[in-house]
Amino acid sequence: MPLVVPHATGRYTVAADALDRLGAYLPDTGIAPGPCLVVTDETVQRLHGDRLRGVLDVLGFAPRVLAVPPGESAKSLAQLGALYDAALSSDGPKVNRQTAVFAFGGGVMGDLGGFFAATLLRGLPLVQLPTTLLAQVDSSLGGKTGINHATGKNLIGAFYPPRLVLADPAVLQTLPPRELASGLAEAVKHALIADAALVMFFEEQLDNALAGDPAVLAETVARAQRIKAEVVIEDEFETGRRAHLNFGHTFAHALERATGFNPAVLTHGEAVAVGMRCALRLSKALAPHLDAERLDALVARLPVPPLPPLDVDDLMAAMQGDKKRGAEGLRFVVLEDVGRAAVVQGVPDALVRDAWTAALG
Amino acid sequence: MPLVVPHATGRYTVAADALDRLGAYLPDTGIAPGPCLVVTDETVQRLHGDRLRGVLDVLGFAPRVLAVPPGESAKSLAQLGALYDAALSSDGPKVNRQTAVFAFGGGVMGDLGGFFAATLLRGLPLVQLPTTLLAQVDSSLGGKTGINHATGKNLIGAFYPPRLVLADPAVLQTLPPRELASGLAEAVKHALIADAALVMFFEEQLDNALAGDPAVLAETVARAQRIKAEVVIEDEFETGRRAHLNFGHTFAHALERATGFNPAVLTHGEAVAVGMRCALRLSKALAPHLDAERLDALVARLPVPPLPPLDVDDLMAAMQGDKKRGAEGLRFVVLEDVGRAAVVQGVPDALVRDAWTAALG
Repeated sequence: MPLVVPHATGRYTVAADALDRLGAYLPDTGIAPGPCLVVTDETVQRLHGDRLRGVLDVLGFAPRVLAVPPGESAKSLAQLGALYDAALSSDGPKVNRQTAVFAFGGGVMGDLGGFFAATLLRGLPLVQLPTTLLAQVDSSLGGKTGINHATGKNLIGAFYPPRLVLADPAVLQTLPPRELASGLAEAVKHALIADAALVMFFEEQLDNALAGDPAVLAETVARAQRIKAEVVIEDEFETGRRAHLNFGHTFAHALERATGFNPAVLTHGEAVAVGMRCALRLSKALAPHLDAERLDALVARLPVPPLPPLDVDDLMAAMQGDKKRGAEGLRFVVLEDVGRAAVVQGVPDALVRDAWTAALG
Repeated sequence: MPLVVPHATGRYTVAADALDRLGAYLPDTGIAPGPCLVVTDETVQRLHGDRLRGVLDVLGFAPRVLAVPPGESAKSLAQLGALYDAALSSDGPKVNRQTAVFAFGGGVMGDLGGFFAATLLRGLPLVQLPTTLLAQVDSSLGGKTGINHATGKNLIGAFYPPRLVLADPAVLQTLPPRELASGLAEAVKHALIADAALVMFFEEQLDNALAGDPAVLAETVARAQRIKAEVVIEDEFETGRRAHLNFGHTFAHALERATGFNPAVLTHGEAVAVGMRCALRLSKALAPHLDAERLDALVARLPVPPLPPLDVDDLMAAMQGDKKRGAEGLRFVVLEDVGRAAVVQGVPDALVRDAWTAALG
């Protein structure tokens, strides 16, 4: 069953379904076939571009494909400006407020293509077609769009809800194993903070998911989407519960900072996997009845490459740099129980150091 | 009485009141004193910057002033990028989601500062402090923000409601006469499309307003704000009645295009004044009972500089270039009666040519 996410100015559908079924979801979006824009990256275009074009052609769309270089560096003001130039050039049909934008790719394309759609002509209809597991279970839902600034990630952007999120689990078959594992880290995180039954599912099926079993991945996407949808419905503008999605992330961001934000060394999902082990240790210190060992055993099954030597003092310093803006002191998301999270502040440094030491062993 | 404008995600107050009274309106905005950003232009900063700083200081704000060169060219992606850089540099206190942005200036500052606020950290609290009559009665209300693109004006932007619009009629005393007249053209337009009583007010007071009479300008701002507020409350995202605000504008845009968008030759408001005379002629052709002569006599009192020689064929061609995106054929806003407008399509070219000829005499 597709999910429906209501928001301040409307609602959108979230589905785990084949790309070829796009036509079944269009009537609810208010999008009519016609000229449209596809924002994608060159890798996704090469692997899946023909398939999307075929789907759009059959439905009567006339797509213009704007393909940008792959990777996080595409989330720049310069790349955004190039997209505006391409869309507004006289080469194609004139863009108007009915021109749909399809953001087709991983989290980078969802963020860049979403912000492009949010700001061209003060907002065009947006469809998110996430192609990585991380984007399918996390970043494509919830309306966050944006680009990076030299001083930090995602510092420029908008909350802009899509008209539809259609995640096709079949495209995950072309994902590199590390990207699949990274997405599974976020899916496991969703389970830990909100869904004890999904924790049990992963205890049974995580290895099959990591091996790319199509049925297991399809169920993973559908169940993890549901959790993310529930959280963003409750907290559209990130003033409350949405913070729980950051479980493990205060540690993860410090790890990414300490390793130069280089996904060749450590992907975001891998950092989250390590960060969750830290956060579980911290949770156990604050909620002694939590069966942290059981949960740590699950998280430990997520593959993480050998880490370079990391100094706890450096990581503690990196955490200070990452201090959540506007808050006094570091904030951590901890588990109170399986499937139940809370935000804590004022955690003694000694406990944080212990969490690092335990996880980095 | 201040107006309250509800919108999809909240509400904001619109007031015609002294800048010094800012503190009286803050409690309803959710904005607390602290570090804040003022986006302004160098002219407004020179004329009124000290006064705003004094007001903010007394309230306990610590303002950082980001002053850009005056004029329409500031509405660029490059200038926006420079604002991001300045705000995120390590020179000042760190920006966080509670950091308020005060857009202080005319329509350009409202658009640029508003879009900056809409997109920095996915949205900061925004206060519009319009300093031109045009901005006070029109552009500061309704949440439209944006910048220009090489291919057209306002093609990049967002709908982003402010937390407060505070228009101080006293600052209008420093406005050049042509800018005052331009603002009055939009105020008269508001009256024509929505408020027969305000039409009578202008029939009595327009010359005093043009002469800068403070009491008349204060009443003009308050009454014209009310009309704009009513229209945007009814049609937040410009899908219906908001189009009525474009009365005279299809003609005006063609005039601006034909004169190179050069405000030294023809300001937007002056173009609107001429455009309204065209639109009244067209209205009369479609609604014969309309007392267009009476209304034309009012509009004709708005000063317009001598126009360069303009060819009706060129203006007709310029209108095609300005075709409202997404519509089939040109759309015109016409008056059905004093204070009542409608949108028409499929108007015969002969009527449009007649309107040009009559107005350009």
